[in-house]
Amino acid sequence: MNEALRNAARRADLIGMCPKEAADILLDQGSVRMFERGATVFSAGAPAQHVFVIMAGWVKLYSVSARGQEAVINVLGPGQTIGDAAVLGAPAHMVHAEATTQVQALQLPVSLVLSLMDRSPETRGAILAGARAHLNALVREIEMLKLRDGAQRAARFLLSLLPPGQGGACDVRLPYDKVVIAGRIGMSPESLSRAFARLRNRGVTVEGNTARIADTHDLSRFCDLCETE
Amino acid sequence: MNEALRNAARRADLIGMCPKEAADILLDQGSVRMFERGATVFSAGAPAQHVFVIMAGWVKLYSVSARGQEAVINVLGPGQTIGDAAVLGAPAHMVHAEATTQVQALQLPVSLVLSLMDRSPETRGAILAGARAHLNALVREIEMLKLRDGAQRAARFLLSLLPPGQGGACDVRLPYDKVVIAGRIGMSPESLSRAFARLRNRGVTVEGNTARIADTHDLSRFCDLCETE
Repeated sequence: MNEALRNAARRADLIGMCPKEAADILLDQGSVRMFERGATVFSAGAPAQHVFVIMAGWVKLYSVSARGQEAVINVLGPGQTIGDAAVLGAPAHMVHAEATTQVQALQLPVSLVLSLMDRSPETRGAILAGARAHLNALVREIEMLKLRDGAQRAARFLLSLLPPGQGGACDVRLPYDKVVIAGRIGMSPESLSRAFARLRNRGVTVEGNTARIADTHDLSRFCDLCETE
Repeated sequence: MNEALRNAARRADLIGMCPKEAADILLDQGSVRMFERGATVFSAGAPAQHVFVIMAGWVKLYSVSARGQEAVINVLGPGQTIGDAAVLGAPAHMVHAEATTQVQALQLPVSLVLSLMDRSPETRGAILAGARAHLNALVREIEMLKLRDGAQRAARFLLSLLPPGQGGACDVRLPYDKVVIAGRIGMSPESLSRAFARLRNRGVTVEGNTARIADTHDLSRFCDLCETE
């Protein structure tokens, strides 16, 4: 791994939060993997042998029902970790993971991550923080599915793409296919198009892969975001 | 805590999985709390000072939107743990917890549970297994919300009440109010009544607080359960 890549990895959630010594061990023993769009990163039920830190691109986590219907659980991107239920002791992956764009990821052996948990309370805290963030994201996802209508879900998705603290008018780039976005927020691609159309009178214009938001605060109010968000 | 209560607590997920020595420390330092129906166990955003092991009754975990709409995230019962995102380092509770029936719970200081994580890998594994179970339950919940229609959700809820391994014909007791059940599976009370009515031709009869299932395997197939379930 070259120095530029190591520096990029140090900004990722898992590695960035670890004390330097533990972060260096992860960087030294991790290996860089490339996945083409559509490639499987891991399958549900397969032994959880690696945790992946996404360096570039987007990974879709999903389940498949007995009749073959797909449910997108989450779509994670640069700096985020996947497969980390293993650090809570899960012997197998809970969901399928598929590269939804080209993906570059740092592959870390679960055994290495687990051994670092014993190293210091700070390292353990950094490793568990990822699992906590996932728990939190899943809770927010359930709130969204239970409370919000299509236009609110679409607006909330657009707001989630903003860098922290960004307000007022701004443009956001849609990071992956509209079909994946639709699955991510629990609707059909047609419903997503209708939702974007309905957002026009809330000051949102979607053209190609860019969404222009006239007023992010106004849009947040429209989404009726939960009090703890 | 009397011996009967200690034995009951030893069957709970968190305590039952701990090595005996750690379990005894939790039992010695935990205190028994009673909550009346409707009482607050903890509030979202409040400092996470305690983890609760439910001994009897049911606790509703929920969020409230800016406009005051409530989203039920989960309803947990005997043997299950609430507030345990704190063991992953969360400084504050993510959601509100309210007793939906009368509740008896064992209250454990977060600091005590955290200190036991350093005691042995077995104890740490037992403590983290609870967080893993929650992560898993939230993933299954999202699958349910994204994939299934009302009758499938209602059927899946009934199946979740069966003891593991139970099959064929059986009766299940509805553990809490139909209003809470409806919120739990993301629908209105009226939609839940319609869903139960639609399940009649799948061999399900709901009368008062009892649901009679003619064939659990048949009902599982109807629910189109995910391949990893």
